[in-house]
Amino acid sequence: MTQETPAVRRRVPRNAGNDYTREQALERIRFAEQQTGTELKHVGQYSFDPDVLPGNIENFFGVAQVPMGLAGPLLIDGEHASGEFFVPMATTEGTLVASYNRGMRLLSENGGVRTSVVDDRMQRSPVFMLGDARQAREFGRWVTQNFDEIKAAADVTTRSGELIDISQHQVGPLLYLRVNYTTGDAAGQNMTGKATFAACEWIKRNHPDSPRYILSGNIDTDKKQSSINTLLTRGKRVVAEATIKRESLSDMMGVDTRDLFYARQISNVGAFMAGSANNGAHAANGLAALFIATGQDVANIAESHAALVYSQLLENGDYYWSITLPALIIATYGGGTGLPTQRECLELLGCFGVGGSYKFAEICAAVVLAGEISLSAAVMHGDWVTSHDELGRNR
Amino acid sequence: MTQETPAVRRRVPRNAGNDYTREQALERIRFAEQQTGTELKHVGQYSFDPDVLPGNIENFFGVAQVPMGLAGPLLIDGEHASGEFFVPMATTEGTLVASYNRGMRLLSENGGVRTSVVDDRMQRSPVFMLGDARQAREFGRWVTQNFDEIKAAADVTTRSGELIDISQHQVGPLLYLRVNYTTGDAAGQNMTGKATFAACEWIKRNHPDSPRYILSGNIDTDKKQSSINTLLTRGKRVVAEATIKRESLSDMMGVDTRDLFYARQISNVGAFMAGSANNGAHAANGLAALFIATGQDVANIAESHAALVYSQLLENGDYYWSITLPALIIATYGGGTGLPTQRECLELLGCFGVGGSYKFAEICAAVVLAGEISLSAAVMHGDWVTSHDELGRNR
Amino acid sequence: MTQETPAVRRRVPRNAGNDYTREQALERIRFAEQQTGTELKHVGQYSFDPDVLPGNIENFFGVAQVPMGLAGPLLIDGEHASGEFFVPMATTEGTLVASYNRGMRLLSENGGVRTSVVDDRMQRSPVFMLGDARQAREFGRWVTQNFDEIKAAADVTTRSGELIDISQHQVGPLLYLRVNYTTGDAAGQNMTGKATFAACEWIKRNHPDSPRYILSGNIDTDKKQSSINTLLTRGKRVVAEATIKRESLSDMMGVDTRDLFYARQISNVGAFMAGSANNGAHAANGLAALFIATGQDVANIAESHAALVYSQLLENGDYYWSITLPALIIATYGGGTGLPTQRECLELLGCFGVGGSYKFAEICAAVVLAGEISLSAAVMHGDWVTSHDELGRNR
Amino acid sequence: MTQETPAVRRRVPRNAGNDYTREQALERIRFAEQQTGTELKHVGQYSFDPDVLPGNIENFFGVAQVPMGLAGPLLIDGEHASGEFFVPMATTEGTLVASYNRGMRLLSENGGVRTSVVDDRMQRSPVFMLGDARQAREFGRWVTQNFDEIKAAADVTTRSGELIDISQHQVGPLLYLRVNYTTGDAAGQNMTGKATFAACEWIKRNHPDSPRYILSGNIDTDKKQSSINTLLTRGKRVVAEATIKRESLSDMMGVDTRDLFYARQISNVGAFMAGSANNGAHAANGLAALFIATGQDVANIAESHAALVYSQLLENGDYYWSITLPALIIATYGGGTGLPTQRECLELLGCFGVGGSYKFAEICAAVVLAGEISLSAAVMHGDWVTSHDELGRNR
Repeated sequence: MTQETPAVRRRVPRNAGNDYTREQALERIRFAEQQTGTELKHVGQYSFDPDVLPGNIENFFGVAQVPMGLAGPLLIDGEHASGEFFVPMATTEGTLVASYNRGMRLLSENGGVRTSVVDDRMQRSPVFMLGDARQAREFGRWVTQNFDEIKAAADVTTRSGELIDISQHQVGPLLYLRVNYTTGDAAGQNMTGKATFAACEWIKRNHPDSPRYILSGNIDTDKKQSSINTLLTRGKRVVAEATIKRESLSDMMGVDTRDLFYARQISNVGAFMAGSANNGAHAANGLAALFIATGQDVANIAESHAALVYSQLLENGDYYWSITLPALIIATYGGGTGLPTQRECLELLGCFGVGGSYKFAEICAAVVLAGEISLSAAVMHGDWVTSHDELGRNR
Repeated sequence: MTQETPAVRRRVPRNAGNDYTREQALERIRFAEQQTGTELKHVGQYSFDPDVLPGNIENFFGVAQVPMGLAGPLLIDGEHASGEFFVPMATTEGTLVASYNRGMRLLSENGGVRTSVVDDRMQRSPVFMLGDARQAREFGRWVTQNFDEIKAAADVTTRSGELIDISQHQVGPLLYLRVNYTTGDAAGQNMTGKATFAACEWIKRNHPDSPRYILSGNIDTDKKQSSINTLLTRGKRVVAEATIKRESLSDMMGVDTRDLFYARQISNVGAFMAGSANNGAHAANGLAALFIATGQDVANIAESHAALVYSQLLENGDYYWSITLPALIIATYGGGTGLPTQRECLELLGCFGVGGSYKFAEICAAVVLAGEISLSAAVMHGDWVTSHDELGRNR
Repeated sequence: MTQETPAVRRRVPRNAGNDYTREQALERIRFAEQQTGTELKHVGQYSFDPDVLPGNIENFFGVAQVPMGLAGPLLIDGEHASGEFFVPMATTEGTLVASYNRGMRLLSENGGVRTSVVDDRMQRSPVFMLGDARQAREFGRWVTQNFDEIKAAADVTTRSGELIDISQHQVGPLLYLRVNYTTGDAAGQNMTGKATFAACEWIKRNHPDSPRYILSGNIDTDKKQSSINTLLTRGKRVVAEATIKRESLSDMMGVDTRDLFYARQISNVGAFMAGSANNGAHAANGLAALFIATGQDVANIAESHAALVYSQLLENGDYYWSITLPALIIATYGGGTGLPTQRECLELLGCFGVGGSYKFAEICAAVVLAGEISLSAAVMHGDWVTSHDELGRNR
Repeated sequence: MTQETPAVRRRVPRNAGNDYTREQALERIRFAEQQTGTELKHVGQYSFDPDVLPGNIENFFGVAQVPMGLAGPLLIDGEHASGEFFVPMATTEGTLVASYNRGMRLLSENGGVRTSVVDDRMQRSPVFMLGDARQAREFGRWVTQNFDEIKAAADVTTRSGELIDISQHQVGPLLYLRVNYTTGDAAGQNMTGKATFAACEWIKRNHPDSPRYILSGNIDTDKKQSSINTLLTRGKRVVAEATIKRESLSDMMGVDTRDLFYARQISNVGAFMAGSANNGAHAANGLAALFIATGQDVANIAESHAALVYSQLLENGDYYWSITLPALIIATYGGGTGLPTQRECLELLGCFGVGGSYKFAEICAAVVLAGEISLSAAVMHGDWVTSHDELGRNR
């Protein structure tokens, strides 16, 4: 690259000394305005000092102001989240907050949502490339035999979690490892990356063949929905359950539980035929709104929106409804959770910081269930389209 | 529900007259502070009048301030996006902007990214419940025969798009229809819902059996990743392609194209074994950052993050790399696109409003490709973990 | 290859003149005995003249004698199969015939099985490799515009079927075509291969760029289960339905329909979580037994075993049960259908030859449903393990 | 059921004393002829005494005579199969034996196929239904804590294998267990059913809540292809590998390794997009032919045809090719393996009886690889269609 090419001259301004100041952000805004002829009046308005941002963003120039609605109260009967919650939801989609709110009211009237975190594991999946399949199999046995030392090599890199176990998935001469960790209250993608790097380096140093590896063999599957995550859990595996009284549903939403259960059979086979990541309705909606509000890594909607709905119609006509999120990736510590508005929203839920992640996971699942019930009832009642016309802009 | 229950007394304050004022938002902030004992200093700080929000949010109480970094320039050789672009990315994940930026520089040095929108269709998928499989099959034939009138009934509900075609997927006595539309520059989920509702009602009135239906049979698959969307397109199907010179990659990223191509074989089979939505690296990251910045429906990351990477190593060692996003759901009109910071970011890309959606789709794909190359090279070069340590908070 | 290598000396004997004689088969048996020291007393015993075999086998040396049981009668209310059928099932698995037989009896007592062929299409999926994505898209439009001529070029190669339509699935610069055909009473894999070859050659000659292609891009997906086949049909898409009276099930199998429906909810979500090709029980069992008996291409069990179960519990406690086979690949003409025992079994079902394939498809689906009901009831009743102990060898 | 209904009168004749005689089989043939007006001349011709059949078939009336061709020699460099093998293939599909034979010759010329069994586990997957998700999670912990006693309860039911481990997959209040076993030289579906039944009964007796269960929750996934099987192995996980010299492929098949590798990129992404069970070509063909010949449970083609192809083009132009069968279900003992022709074919391969299963698994994988290479080369060379015309009947 020559210094004279236009591309170089048009480089986004950076300050080698301190790049995280209002002035520096403003310089980038001016640069962007100049380059594109756009006037930027709003992006530069934010309520905090940019010096909180290192570790969260590079080339900072302003903020997206995403409107938030307050939904709730949502009554939760969890092991970590217990009582009524008011839920901040950041979205630009009309009817979303209203719809979730409606579901929360129904659930609260029916004794609330029972929530449980049933598994917890974040992973990095390196792949080792051996000379042939036989060597890969023997290498796998060696990994099993040396588990304690591999674990020690990984665990030393972090204080917030630890290596749980390693599953092996062989293809030809390749041995894909799925290295599972607890991660405390962080989401843990970086932590597990670092720990697994240490583990792999230990392996390389200590295995007689010094086998080559790649730190990700694409079965983690980071930022991607997958069968392996639904089966084996990524992040938190969390369940929300409720039993809805037949009269309550009928009174509040004008729908009979029997019709809802009839429709469930159809949704189940539809989702199955479509090869869908989720046999429910729209977990992604509630999760995205919560994730943006609370500083989660929003790209993890890719994994987190997977869900397994299981329900039964009871003898008395009441409706048992559960939803399992097998790959909910969240944090209450690290990442964006400490940024100003994000932290406030976590605090509003009583989840900020160390010790908050299971509580937050339970709230996420409860919110998702509220949205499932509300949308499913709306579809059956036929007011899905009309409510969008009223509350949403008619697009 | 009795009026005296605490749940009722704790209801979020709403103003039946005008709920979209700073005062009303502040009242909700005060309510939330009171209910939860949290002090909210930042969420109430925003730069616009809440009267712009009807149709985007309910129970508005403030904003999430999501930091944005400016990446680029990214040289794009598209049919709609052409030239150099500076890209606003809203994220709280350290290294993300830096990593994409690095990929953009490499691509720009290599002649830029060629982008093409190759298909465009949004759908709603109602299901009709017939008496038995035979009736369902015959009903399907009737739908085919009456296509023109069904289309007319749907098309009359909207000016921004039109019904393209209807595919049929039968299970027992159920006929799932996948009704496909163009949607102009809106994402079109609401539009297609409304149009399909009109189509279904027309069918119900005109078919001799007045068959029952549900407006969604769960094969759309709205807000959910699925095989059907990857195969048949949801939203835009858009491709980004580039040919990267061997020396260029080696100089800028310290990685040989041959090693990258070797690793691609491993990533392909890993993704295939894992049942992944995407055989690439991390499309969700770039898309989420773009979606938040530009007022997209962020829940659509669920569908949009699916991708198909196809690449070849050329005789001379250069690397042809393509990524196809089969279900990119975006808008440049309607939804959150007109909100203050969101609109500014779309304008910065020259995509706001009518006529911008194909251009924006191309930019999305080009950005995704930049992220693929940067991360893949980092993983091979071994600086993936270390860069996170430098730029990201050590979690 | 040198003539002196042992590999050459050990070549299986072939007769350039007429390789399909008892003598020639015997010579190969002797050769095999010599090479392996095995005595072959049974494989050489068959009841037909090998001169019927050209086109079905090479290097013929004998037969596998697969025992067959006679199940039935099975009462079918189909459009093509109507009345009671006795079903030849070739298997070596104890309890299989008994179990299917039990299901047939239950179904016959309940008014029989209603069967319907709802779609019919066999395909070959070539892929064209264009210069870039844009060219591939334009090429796709050209294919659409030239559909009539492409169809003519394909149709001229065969009298037993015709090209129906072509779907397009683009990835980067690759355009995968799924070329769909009716195939009369043949399975049609060869016919569609030949016709598609003609179509592709026509395209190559007539398109200005003479694009390169490969005759299979691996999305057919021949001899492989896949989402695309479940969604878009391969071979026959056929449905079997029945309504089972609560008392009948209870009397004959000791199971309540409510328990069965309760268990269905669990099987549905289990199959969904597992990423299974089939949310039912064991379609492959009945189909394999039918396929071997009737000279089908048994490898097509790979595709044909996919199934979609959809059921409802009726108000009165009766149980509506349907199973849809979306990719049933069968023939009553060509392939192995004309071989001696195979033809007899097809004749026993009244399906041999031209005009028999829809009838046979309906029988296949009805048999599958019988097996579903029998096994599901056995699992719920707890006699699944014990019946295997009685009828099957204890392995 | 009244005794007077026609259905009863038309019942297939059975002999309560000894149903497994030539006379009894003949009586059923006469019955079938009478009922259907078909003349059955061939099905009644078989070379063994029916008294060998109990445990393999019910209502025996004759045999399917499936023609077999002798392919080979195939040079295998396995841990259990070592040397040259002549392979019996039972099929009615023209060109199949010839095509596999061609691949075997190429592989043998290139040093043979290296084969390795890398995992071995058969499973039954019961589901326990608890009161809620929390109870299900606690129940899961109890299962882990009581593993030794559960294993003991299972292991006592069988001498041929043992319980290895139990994985847990929770959905709402349901805990699906995947109970894994070694099964010696039997396929083991019955054995694992019986052992798991004992394990579940032990659990029910000993857990304080006596939880209800169903012996299969549909995640085994018995007789069904699935992601879980590809990831976690069902039956044998076996790999076949070979390195093919560039000149050798070019000389024998007229195809350049570079073209084959180019096409592999296209097949990979095609299979990925299609949601295919197998990114290779046609494993089902070779396996079905082997399974019928050797008395395997042919319905297991459903699971066994899944495959993972991984290959690399070496610097010198040679082609490394591996195929991994993650769910190969085979036996050399029990089931149909001891029947006359079936046993002879197993003996021909030197695999009959105790100790033969790993050897046979290796042969299966080696045969599959031969078929992959032959078909892939034929498709690239363009002689796929023409060879079918010559050797197969033109259907």
